[in-house]
Amino acid sequence: MGFSPLVDQLLDALRVLPGVGPKTAQRMALHLLERDRDGGRRLTEVLGRALVEVGYCRRCRTLTEEEVCALCSSARRDETLLCIVESPADMLAIEEAGGYQGQYYVLHGHLSPLDGIGPEDIGLDRLDGRLDQGAIEEVILATNPTVEGEATAHYIAEQLRERGIRLSRLAYGVPMGGELEYVDGGTLSRAFNGRLPFSGG
Amino acid sequence: MGFSPLVDQLLDALRVLPGVGPKTAQRMALHLLERDRDGGRRLTEVLGRALVEVGYCRRCRTLTEEEVCALCSSARRDETLLCIVESPADMLAIEEAGGYQGQYYVLHGHLSPLDGIGPEDIGLDRLDGRLDQGAIEEVILATNPTVEGEATAHYIAEQLRERGIRLSRLAYGVPMGGELEYVDGGTLSRAFNGRLPFSGG
Repeated sequence: MGFSPLVDQLLDALRVLPGVGPKTAQRMALHLLERDRDGGRRLTEVLGRALVEVGYCRRCRTLTEEEVCALCSSARRDETLLCIVESPADMLAIEEAGGYQGQYYVLHGHLSPLDGIGPEDIGLDRLDGRLDQGAIEEVILATNPTVEGEATAHYIAEQLRERGIRLSRLAYGVPMGGELEYVDGGTLSRAFNGRLPFSGG
Repeated sequence: MGFSPLVDQLLDALRVLPGVGPKTAQRMALHLLERDRDGGRRLTEVLGRALVEVGYCRRCRTLTEEEVCALCSSARRDETLLCIVESPADMLAIEEAGGYQGQYYVLHGHLSPLDGIGPEDIGLDRLDGRLDQGAIEEVILATNPTVEGEATAHYIAEQLRERGIRLSRLAYGVPMGGELEYVDGGTLSRAFNGRLPFSGG
């Protein structure tokens, strides 16, 4: 036995959310139906609208309900720098860190031939078009420091080679505030090889 | 800076779900918008329908889209037993445990004067009407073994006292499969006081 058919359907539907298993789905469904129907209605309304209206920015491909996102429309961003990230969440993290004032390009994923994800699935077929538009002088490859992220960065570097544009990659090294003891070996040897002159005094 | 206004609204709306903080809401929103729009549409459709159609069973007050739920409509349930629980989830747990074949009555909460939750908020004003309908001979008080659940059980016992109906409460004791070492003192002394004749050998 379970709940009524419609409540059971709701449990199923909630499981499309990442990290939501049967018990969590049950807790969510009962919470919405017993205690927060207003919140539930707001969720259906906003989610429904977002699914229809939110698409990709025509310039940087981030998620937005506008043709061109607020960042791409801003006159205060440096037109000569383009940072390529895997996800809008990475873009937000970089913005929150502060300091970077250039443009972005969002892949929404990384190359993964085994999963059938090729260059056009992550918007690389339109990257040349984006570079043709503007005054980009440097492309910063900020894909994740994972096997797939590295492979994607290499692919993009290859694709852009003949443009003669400056390419850079985020620095590798020990994370700030961490303890060496807990840093993995690969990171540690990268940090040794990339050691910098000490400017502390 | 955040995401676009509509995506930010979606993050807010997802936070009505219990246990969902800012990071989880972000992961959910990006997952739905980037990878599973079909799942998102199904969620809005089913949740929207559930919020309109799912109400309380006229007899037992569990959540259902019918006038009377499947369990109350079943001819195979014992009409003489009524089990009072705090939530549809408790009802489901008892059904899954198996063995109980009677009826239910769902409070959707417990008495909590400090939060302004009185008897009529948990359907106790309609409990007499439910008992008047049928051939109930025993009421099993299966509210949670918490302070609020106990208080609610006592309140119901008081309310039903003059009907001269048989009242029972779930047994207290050590949970099956647990280790005594980890059982709290209150439970352990209850289990001692309620010790049973050994029928094993």
